[in-house]
This record gives sequence, C-alpha cells and structure tokens, in this order.
Amino acid sequence: MERNMEGTTVNVTVPAGAQASYEVRIGSGLLGRIPGETAELLPGARPFVVTDANLEKAGHLAAMAGDGFEDVYSIDPPGESSKTIETVEGIIDAMEQKRFGRDTVVLALGGGTVGDVAGFAAAIYKRGVPCVQIPTTTVAQADSAIGGKTGVDSKLSKNAYGAFHNPVRVYVDCATLRTLDDRDYRAGLVESVKHGMIMDAEYFGYMEAHMDGILARDDAALLHLAERNCAIKGRVVAEDPKEKGLRRILNYGHTIGHAVESLSGYALLHGEAVAIGIVGACRVAEALGSGAAEVTARAKAVLEKLGVPLRIEGIAKEPILDTMRRDKKSVGGRARFVLLKNMGETDPAGGGYAVEVPADIVDATLSELGAG
Amino acid sequence: MERNMEGTTVNVTVPAGAQASYEVRIGSGLLGRIPGETAELLPGARPFVVTDANLEKAGHLAAMAGDGFEDVYSIDPPGESSKTIETVEGIIDAMEQKRFGRDTVVLALGGGTVGDVAGFAAAIYKRGVPCVQIPTTTVAQADSAIGGKTGVDSKLSKNAYGAFHNPVRVYVDCATLRTLDDRDYRAGLVESVKHGMIMDAEYFGYMEAHMDGILARDDAALLHLAERNCAIKGRVVAEDPKEKGLRRILNYGHTIGHAVESLSGYALLHGEAVAIGIVGACRVAEALGSGAAEVTARAKAVLEKLGVPLRIEGIAKEPILDTMRRDKKSVGGRARFVLLKNMGETDPAGGGYAVEVPADIVDATLSELGAG
Repeated sequence: MERNMEGTTVNVTVPAGAQASYEVRIGSGLLGRIPGETAELLPGARPFVVTDANLEKAGHLAAMAGDGFEDVYSIDPPGESSKTIETVEGIIDAMEQKRFGRDTVVLALGGGTVGDVAGFAAAIYKRGVPCVQIPTTTVAQADSAIGGKTGVDSKLSKNAYGAFHNPVRVYVDCATLRTLDDRDYRAGLVESVKHGMIMDAEYFGYMEAHMDGILARDDAALLHLAERNCAIKGRVVAEDPKEKGLRRILNYGHTIGHAVESLSGYALLHGEAVAIGIVGACRVAEALGSGAAEVTARAKAVLEKLGVPLRIEGIAKEPILDTMRRDKKSVGGRARFVLLKNMGETDPAGGGYAVEVPADIVDATLSELGAG
Repeated sequence: MERNMEGTTVNVTVPAGAQASYEVRIGSGLLGRIPGETAELLPGARPFVVTDANLEKAGHLAAMAGDGFEDVYSIDPPGESSKTIETVEGIIDAMEQKRFGRDTVVLALGGGTVGDVAGFAAAIYKRGVPCVQIPTTTVAQADSAIGGKTGVDSKLSKNAYGAFHNPVRVYVDCATLRTLDDRDYRAGLVESVKHGMIMDAEYFGYMEAHMDGILARDDAALLHLAERNCAIKGRVVAEDPKEKGLRRILNYGHTIGHAVESLSGYALLHGEAVAIGIVGACRVAEALGSGAAEVTARAKAVLEKLGVPLRIEGIAKEPILDTMRRDKKSVGGRARFVLLKNMGETDPAGGGYAVEVPADIVDATLSELGAG
C-alpha cells in the first residue's frame, strides 16, 4: 500500500493461471464410451446434455446417454436461428430447475450451434462449469468444437455475447457424419479447405486428390480429415488461445463470410458463407498484389467440387459493408481481412494477421462477387 | 498425435495465462481524474459508462464524465431487482447500437448491482472487454468491486449467470459515500464487519472503537475502512482468484444471507441479509462446539450499533432450506457454511473453508433467528 497526496493505492495481483490441456479423441462409433469416460475424468460430476431434435431423431442421443436419459435440453428449432441469449437462458433455467450445481458437466452433443450455445451456457453458469464437446457435423468437428470459443448472436451481430471456455475434452466421432444431410455435410467441409489454405498446402493437395472419397464419406477419408483438422486447429489455439495474433488466421474467409451469413438471415449456411468469403479474400489479395491468381483458381476448383455457392445472391453492398464495420474483428469501425501470401501460408501483417484493406478494393470485390 | 485401435488422440495445450495486476486507487474526490487516467491506461479505448439514476441525480456521472456525455446506460430501476440477464442484454444492445467494438472499456459507476451487471456485460461482450470499477456504496467499495466476480441473478437463484472478469482498475472514492442514503450506508458496512471477523481482529477492534466516526462518515474513518477493506479483499483474491479454497471465507454469513435476501424479494438489502447470516454462522459454530459465545456477542453488538436487522422476519424455514440447497456453494444438494474459529480467524475445514453442517443444527439456528 502506498499513500500520498493523491490518496492510497493498493495493488491486487491476479496470479498466472496454470497450463492445462485436453484431449481430442477421434474415432468411429465413440458415443457410448462418453458417459463412462466423463465419470472417470470428473468423478462425481452430474452430466447435463444439450443437443437438438436432429440428433435425437438420428439416434445419437440414445447411443450416447441411453434411452430415457432425462437431464437434457433439446435446442428447438435446431440451427443458427437458435443461437441466441434466449436459448442460453432456457438451458440455464432447465439446469436450475433440476438443481444442477457447480458439480455439473455439460455434454454438448451436436453441431456448431449446440457447441457454441452449450459451451457459452457452461461458461457462465454459476461462473463456469466444465463442458465436453461432442461435435457431430463437418463444421463443428473441423472447427468450432476445439479452442474454447463460445457465444451467441444478438440481433445485430454474430457472437455479440461470448466467452473463452475451453472444453475439458472433445470427442470427434466420424460415424455421426453419416446421418448429416448432404448440404450441411458439404458446407462444413469448407472449414477443412480453409485449414489447408491457411496452414498446410499438403493437406489442401490431399483434398484436391481425394474429393470423391471425401464426398462418399469413406471412413479413411473422414478419419484423415478429422486428424488433420484437429491437429491444425489445436496447434493454432495452443499458440494463441485468446486470439491476440496467430489465431486470427482461422477467421480466413470470415470477414465477408460472417456478413453475408447474417444478412442472408441464415439462409446461407456458415460454411457456404465462408466459401464466398474465401473467394473474396483471394480476390482482395490479388487486387493488393500480394496473392497469386493460381491460389484463387485452386480454391475455386475445390469449392466448386463441394458444390457450395461462390457468389453473393440478393444481398446489397451497403448492408454488407455496414455489417463488416460492426464485426468484432473491426478496429475503429474499419473491417480487416486475413489474407494468404501463398497456398498454406498467411500474411502475418506485422504479427496481427489482419490486413486493413482500402475501401475501393473491398467495394470492387463485393461487386465482383455479385453483391447488388 | 497417437493412433491405436480405439482411434486417435490429439492433445490440445492451453498455455498458462500471464500474471496480471491492477491498482485500487483510494481517495476523496477522484471521479474527475478517471477519464484521463483510463485513456492513459488503455490508449485508444472507447469508454462506455454503466450507472443508474441515483448516481446521475447525485451528480456523480457529471463529476466523472462531464455534462452531456452520451455513451451511457443507466440501469432502471436502480438496485438488486435489475440484476438480471435482461439488463445485461439492454447494455449489450446499447453498445452494439453505438457500434462499440473490442476497443471498448466499460466504466461501472455505482453500487454492487451496477458493478456486477456492468462487469458481467464487459466479461461477455464480444468475448470480453476491459472494465474499470468505480464503486460508490459501502458494500461495493468494501467487497464487490475487487476480485473479478461478476454476474446476475435468475428467477431461482443469485448469480446463476456469472463470470470471473478482473477489472483493469478500481477507484474507491470515499466522497461518493456522502450522498448514499443512511440505510444503504449502514447495510454496506456489514461487509467491513465481515472482513474484520474473517481476517483481522485488530480491524474489528477499530470498528468497535470508532463506530461513531464511521456512522458520521468522517473522512479519516472512511479512508481507513477503504484501505483495510481493499487490502484484505485484495490479499484473499490474489491468493485464490477462482474461489477454490481461501476465497470462500468471503462468503462468511452468505449461506443464510443469500437465501433470506432472495426470499425477501430483495426487501432486505444484501448487507442486512449478510448481518443475519453472520449471526446465524456464529450460532452454528457455537452449536458445533467450535465457536466462542464471546465472538457471537461482539458481532451482535457491532451489528446492533449499525442498526441492521438481526432476525429473520416473515420468511418460513422450508423455502430457506430449499434455497440454500440450490445455492452455488452447495455440493450434492447440501449447504455449506464458512465458520470462525475465533475473531479474525476462519476454520480452514481441510483447506476447503466450507463446513457441511448437520441438518438439525441448521434447522435449530433458523428457528432461533426467527424463521417461521
């Protein structure tokens, strides 16, 4: 304590948090092992499952928790439109009604929305309870289940509410992908394409060469994708857990992507919007003179094989620009882009991995993509 | 990466967070310095103020931010009944409408409700923005503004929603206490009494000896209290920021206190409820044979001078027991108590600082306190 004419100052020290780690267990047909392994990991914890009607219908909830398991909140309707603070309130009310205490473990069984919403509910329930992520879609397995980002959207923007809350474990069960509908399956693979583009040219080459097996959902291909995705995502978030620098590369394709996803009223799936955003980011890099036309061409070719849309349809330019300015990645109201220098290599942009792009280039790129 | 018959396991490492520290600046008439000092602390950050109508009326908002400052959310009505997720949504909507990004700094000017709500909004806005706490009540200055606990209540329990989010700075301006109404002023001093009882018998003795000066709001007494409170609270939270052990002593008096506060529909102020809880905890310790009757007598004498209620009026025993079981401090549905071994010294209870008390003793204590 220090006293002077200005008054007294007391310093409060916040000790460093300990290093921690969690396992991502990858395989096929893992669901039935989860309750037992969770009890070993967290002895005495009470499991509460968050899932949605699609997962229940596909039999995955029963495969994991057994028939008649009752400590469940099923998100209704499934999908992005339920990624709201009201859904979080519903989950927390349900846990409170059943008197779940700090000894709760939340099991998040589902796609990106389930993981984001359940992870955020776990992050803020009684100041934080543990969460096991069990992603069941291509997008969630590749991306959202690992790394501790959780959150929900507001009326104005994506992830306006959120927290960093690392899972205590992740299970990637490739068998759950077999019940996924084709459009969701394909859109989710865009995150895998993104991983190759930002970090691993060889992995991108694997996808170019094995797209038939990937689209046929062959076990070998699915396991290879899961392993590469988790290794890449795990490496990035371990280096930069709070997105101060390197982790921003995972936002590749997301600057335009988030905006058009939101403005489509979620008619566009996340991966579809990111595909458009990836093409946009490629074109921005070309316009700045830092990106190669060959990278753009290879990206478009792979994304076309996935059958995802690559053009903006029916959304005007002004609202896109406006939404981009309000994005959490924007600084001082100006949007920023993650850009590639080459296939598998991002532009570090002085360590910030986010390039401020002149307004005329953004404008021209949006026009070229088809924005009205 | 490790591959075997069960599948592959990828380990994700979460690096240790860095040690951090923040200053608590204590004095009289500090408010006008805050905007400039915040700009020095966080260059380029955009300040957004959360406060309430009482603070505006008392002139404290203008004293801090100047007349006509517009980036303000004023909590309405002031007080515990607004400590809800809906208020947090209102704050976040207001920040979004004004396009506040990750470069926001939230200035929480007010009592415990303002600090808890604004701190929680800062914790979850775009996955966390910094917050400066400027507590203006005895309870907030002594307790809630330091240590990073933030949160709001649900219909069923206190702080059902919450996060640990340390402030980047705290200002304790004793001059703001002069405009506080007498009941709030006295109730908030219960937290100071609590600090003496759990950590510092000499400080408790100071309050016994100087109660007249304290109640007259003498500058010297107020500054002494602020310094002792911040030093005690700062020491406890530095040792145990996430309430795994020692920090639980700050919940002294809160097991019964939280329950009766909530069941009174917040007719009881937090400090008043804690005063009842302190007397309850003293009696529980006596019944267990670990606490001295002299400690109970001294506590009651000081609390009586404060003029706070020491008996439960018009609340039945069953709902109190039920609420205690649902408390976040409960484990397996059983309530736990922080107990004193002696004045200034808590029972570490094996390092957990929370004693499971037989149901019959809890029951008898509630009857003795007047629960119907």
